[in-house]
Amino acid sequence: MSLKIIWDRYILGKMIDFNKTGFDFDSAGEGMYHIISALYPICRSITGEGVRQTLNFIQQHLPLQQVEVPTGTPVLDWVVPKEWNIQDAYVKNHHGEKIIDFQQSNLHVLNYSIPVHKTLPLAELKPHLFSLPEYPNWIPYRTSYYQENWGFCLQHQRLESLEDCEYEVYIDASLTEGALTYGECVLPGATTDEVLFSCHCCHPSLCNDNLSGLALMTWLAKYLSASSRRYSYRFLFIPGTIGSITWLSRNEAQVPHIKHGLVVAGVGDSGPLTYKKSRQGEAEIDRVVSHVLHHSGVPYQLQGFSPYGYDERQYCSPGFNLPVGSLTRSPFGTYPEYHTSADNLDFVSPEALAESLEVYLAVVDVLEHNHTYLNTHPYGEPQLGKRGLYDRMGGKQTTPESRMALLWVLNLSDGTHSLLDIAERSHLPFGVIKQAAQALAQTDLLV
Amino acid sequence: MSLKIIWDRYILGKMIDFNKTGFDFDSAGEGMYHIISALYPICRSITGEGVRQTLNFIQQHLPLQQVEVPTGTPVLDWVVPKEWNIQDAYVKNHHGEKIIDFQQSNLHVLNYSIPVHKTLPLAELKPHLFSLPEYPNWIPYRTSYYQENWGFCLQHQRLESLEDCEYEVYIDASLTEGALTYGECVLPGATTDEVLFSCHCCHPSLCNDNLSGLALMTWLAKYLSASSRRYSYRFLFIPGTIGSITWLSRNEAQVPHIKHGLVVAGVGDSGPLTYKKSRQGEAEIDRVVSHVLHHSGVPYQLQGFSPYGYDERQYCSPGFNLPVGSLTRSPFGTYPEYHTSADNLDFVSPEALAESLEVYLAVVDVLEHNHTYLNTHPYGEPQLGKRGLYDRMGGKQTTPESRMALLWVLNLSDGTHSLLDIAERSHLPFGVIKQAAQALAQTDLLV
Amino acid sequence: MSLKIIWDRYILGKMIDFNKTGFDFDSAGEGMYHIISALYPICRSITGEGVRQTLNFIQQHLPLQQVEVPTGTPVLDWVVPKEWNIQDAYVKNHHGEKIIDFQQSNLHVLNYSIPVHKTLPLAELKPHLFSLPEYPNWIPYRTSYYQENWGFCLQHQRLESLEDCEYEVYIDASLTEGALTYGECVLPGATTDEVLFSCHCCHPSLCNDNLSGLALMTWLAKYLSASSRRYSYRFLFIPGTIGSITWLSRNEAQVPHIKHGLVVAGVGDSGPLTYKKSRQGEAEIDRVVSHVLHHSGVPYQLQGFSPYGYDERQYCSPGFNLPVGSLTRSPFGTYPEYHTSADNLDFVSPEALAESLEVYLAVVDVLEHNHTYLNTHPYGEPQLGKRGLYDRMGGKQTTPESRMALLWVLNLSDGTHSLLDIAERSHLPFGVIKQAAQALAQTDLLV
Repeated sequence: MSLKIIWDRYILGKMIDFNKTGFDFDSAGEGMYHIISALYPICRSITGEGVRQTLNFIQQHLPLQQVEVPTGTPVLDWVVPKEWNIQDAYVKNHHGEKIIDFQQSNLHVLNYSIPVHKTLPLAELKPHLFSLPEYPNWIPYRTSYYQENWGFCLQHQRLESLEDCEYEVYIDASLTEGALTYGECVLPGATTDEVLFSCHCCHPSLCNDNLSGLALMTWLAKYLSASSRRYSYRFLFIPGTIGSITWLSRNEAQVPHIKHGLVVAGVGDSGPLTYKKSRQGEAEIDRVVSHVLHHSGVPYQLQGFSPYGYDERQYCSPGFNLPVGSLTRSPFGTYPEYHTSADNLDFVSPEALAESLEVYLAVVDVLEHNHTYLNTHPYGEPQLGKRGLYDRMGGKQTTPESRMALLWVLNLSDGTHSLLDIAERSHLPFGVIKQAAQALAQTDLLV
Repeated sequence: MSLKIIWDRYILGKMIDFNKTGFDFDSAGEGMYHIISALYPICRSITGEGVRQTLNFIQQHLPLQQVEVPTGTPVLDWVVPKEWNIQDAYVKNHHGEKIIDFQQSNLHVLNYSIPVHKTLPLAELKPHLFSLPEYPNWIPYRTSYYQENWGFCLQHQRLESLEDCEYEVYIDASLTEGALTYGECVLPGATTDEVLFSCHCCHPSLCNDNLSGLALMTWLAKYLSASSRRYSYRFLFIPGTIGSITWLSRNEAQVPHIKHGLVVAGVGDSGPLTYKKSRQGEAEIDRVVSHVLHHSGVPYQLQGFSPYGYDERQYCSPGFNLPVGSLTRSPFGTYPEYHTSADNLDFVSPEALAESLEVYLAVVDVLEHNHTYLNTHPYGEPQLGKRGLYDRMGGKQTTPESRMALLWVLNLSDGTHSLLDIAERSHLPFGVIKQAAQALAQTDLLV
Repeated sequence: MSLKIIWDRYILGKMIDFNKTGFDFDSAGEGMYHIISALYPICRSITGEGVRQTLNFIQQHLPLQQVEVPTGTPVLDWVVPKEWNIQDAYVKNHHGEKIIDFQQSNLHVLNYSIPVHKTLPLAELKPHLFSLPEYPNWIPYRTSYYQENWGFCLQHQRLESLEDCEYEVYIDASLTEGALTYGECVLPGATTDEVLFSCHCCHPSLCNDNLSGLALMTWLAKYLSASSRRYSYRFLFIPGTIGSITWLSRNEAQVPHIKHGLVVAGVGDSGPLTYKKSRQGEAEIDRVVSHVLHHSGVPYQLQGFSPYGYDERQYCSPGFNLPVGSLTRSPFGTYPEYHTSADNLDFVSPEALAESLEVYLAVVDVLEHNHTYLNTHPYGEPQLGKRGLYDRMGGKQTTPESRMALLWVLNLSDGTHSLLDIAERSHLPFGVIKQAAQALAQTDLLV
């Protein structure tokens, strides 16, 4: 692995005891890729059996609670929609040949299509066909959740070659009273203050958006379940928009406990890591992710909040205004493969997934250890030599960087600076500041 | 018209009903140029008949009140000076030829010259002659308001050619007890909060500085008199420095009502629009003008406040500290034609005047509509579809920009953000934000 | 002298009456260089006779109080160490030749070496020898204050040429109960608010670090002792680290009087002036030095605070958090001559010392005159003409700069802006603002 994250495994390892849990960090990328591969064939939507199958699979890894919210339940300004399920769908030409076949790709059906079975001429079929002229070999992904419609998505090349004849269209789908399903996993910590991770679980055969998010969040939860935790951690696997609205509607009492949060999506492609800040803009999570990325050694970009995107739109709506950002790789909508059949198993890689996971773990590491200490000897510099800290620290020879970290922690630990404040002001990575603080806390100098 | 101001006529038109008032925006530039042409020949000074003739002409367009303040009246730290009037002036050589003639250009006389009639040799005349060696064909504009003196301004070329003989100098002027005259027009609005526009009316035959200011302010007042107004608007046509000091001295009770203001000058030349901020620096007027210029599509520059310039010096003196900036084109003193006979009818153009007026109108538009709304459904995003706002707004197909504007207005309308705040944060032009807010205010989502 | 400091001698001279005191500013550089030359041969350490001899010499120039603090006295988290004195030291080879001789350079002995006299083979000697492979002709400067040891420093070239034989090592030093000595000079001013200047007086034959600091501080104190003073001034000549800790420990009641301070070191080399800000970062001293350097016309650099460096580490420890920065030329550790025998009399120059002193004096000038005035005529601009300030000021013709300074002082003297605030906002040098304020204060306009 060629990751350059400055929080090396030794430092992360102090929080997460890999040996004890049996996790092998090197194989995490492969493990996440395996989850994506297993979930890829399932036809998901914002409701229905596809979601339940997906959550069942993840439940093999995590103690996941599945929640069912009945159709018609009012949730904030919305109402839980009917449940959608689909068995089969095709379009046959006048020779009886299936020219579009749901069994070949579940993207072929307009997601949330109503059932249909009829024969009609090409001219009447065309308004129900969707393609991408710029990418004639790719199938687009389209939905019609809140406006009843039926349709097929197909390669533009194939659309162009359609003969002017009668076609049999068949969609064996149902839109019925049922439920919206989401998955929730809570890892209690030393405090009831929570860190929220949320990913959308509603897209059919699309890998980066957002099977990569499901996979990363599963492994992140696995790691954290085996480590000691200052914070409680909540992992939400929910359908986009309506899912977060439903969860927020049902958990108003829980919301104030959320101190930090990230929306997890698009973490498997080869693009640079991208952090979109929370609406608050200078929340601790915003500063933590910026700091981690700054010192990560990998390319990245920072973006201000905007009310368009993934479920951070809901968490950051003005009534909640939660400190929830979104950490992805290539931002949604900026790459041509987005919402097409080209967002497939070739578009994501174990290496990119592992790098993303490592950054998420580094973020958690900072959140967990971002304490505010107090220098007990604030008048003048304390004498480090007599406490064995002059040229050794934690049993190791000090470096110029670790010596500076000792001085910075002592100088700024006046009760108003957290370790992150100190890391930012000193331009040293948090891990180095954290180690200095831990060494000092073992003497009488820091409490 | 090739203006690129993003507040197109449709948007401005909603505030100002051109059809109803009969105003034709396209002809505004010509109309303003016409005013400049008519006022150009008049010999103005800080007092006297020239000012009265000028205000009489403007009164044909506006309900202008002329105010006379007697000589000797104490005004703040100053005293209203004697009134100056002039009938004729010349210098004759020993052949009896008029080599300098007030009738050819009123710039030839040192403004506020005392009367004189005598014959004297060139050596004694020279200290009373003023010219511009760098621009030998131009007549400079000079004044001596507060130190009694007489003099002539002339082309340097002509000065150089003067023979060493006796000259007859004649200035038929009077400096007597009289009055300082200024014009005032108030358009009451829905509130007594005021927007102040102020221009100096004291320069003789100079077009950009400041007949352009008089012309623009006249048309601005005409437009606003025919529109509905949230604010009251006050237009001051006053002699520079002593005029604003006199007005401030006589209207102390009125001063606290001034919420925004602009000093109007030099708006007819071809230079880039220039905004000089108020002393406050971040007042609403400063942010509004910056925003309008940023989105205007035309070149512009921003300058910090400085206590040198036009009458903003008085409005921004520390005791008043009003939020009054100055919006000009080329800043005073930065172009060679400034305060010379070259600031003539060729130096200003209808196109530049119209562009300046449009920016002033856009500024007024933002001030008038910069409300702070409240999202009534702040928990999660409200469902736009069921309110007919998902893909249509105000009867028109939404654009990506107008959809983003809807989301931004909903997200930031938490009672602490004005529409200008939202426009600044979203990097969208105010007009787009305003339209989104108006569409939302027609539903139950925004109050 | 080719100094370009904008506070010319005329302005500085108003504070310091050179004629009266008989000081000749031009000879200041030579005077400081002379002090360095005289003190160069003395072997100083953090305690001992070398410090006393040095302070005795400075006492010829200044009313310096010498303070003796006994060995074993607890000072903050430290304890005053034993006193170190040395008479002689050498290493002889088996021919009886002195190959290292303390009499040739006091840098040859590891500072604070314990006494030793024995014969030992090269292999056993080598761990006690220190050299600089990169600069084979220079002797490094090394210390071992808080860990008992003995050793010799020598040219790497000489180290390399040592034969593999027996050597006689001899250090006639003593480490005994005694005292730590420091010098203190206080010049009382109109108020008990203090400006602190502190330099370290503990390095043996090293010129820039820090005989230059001792020399500059001596001359600075001489100048200030002959001038009127708003502030009281305190000058500390102390051993590094333990000296400032000792002073702070013994003067806790005095500490709150320190309103501004500078640590003086490394002011004689040819590098650019460098200001390291106080921990507060935006203290008045930080703004003053930045302003002076900005307008000085000489190259300079600004650095944020860091808890590593000279005695500002102690003054800026969190318990004290004093507004004390450090104004040097080349920063410590950034030049190869640092802490070597190459930091000799050739490495410093009268010109650099004089330029540094002038900047220190300019800083003092700003501190002394940084008053906050009140414009008594804040409504509108006051009429300058009737007060003789329109085109003359202090008996001299005004310049465009001085006229702007008058307007800025009037405009911003609303009780919330100091003269430094006005200088910063107007981008004019403090000296010009100061002169304008003084001219206005002689009228009824400013109090």
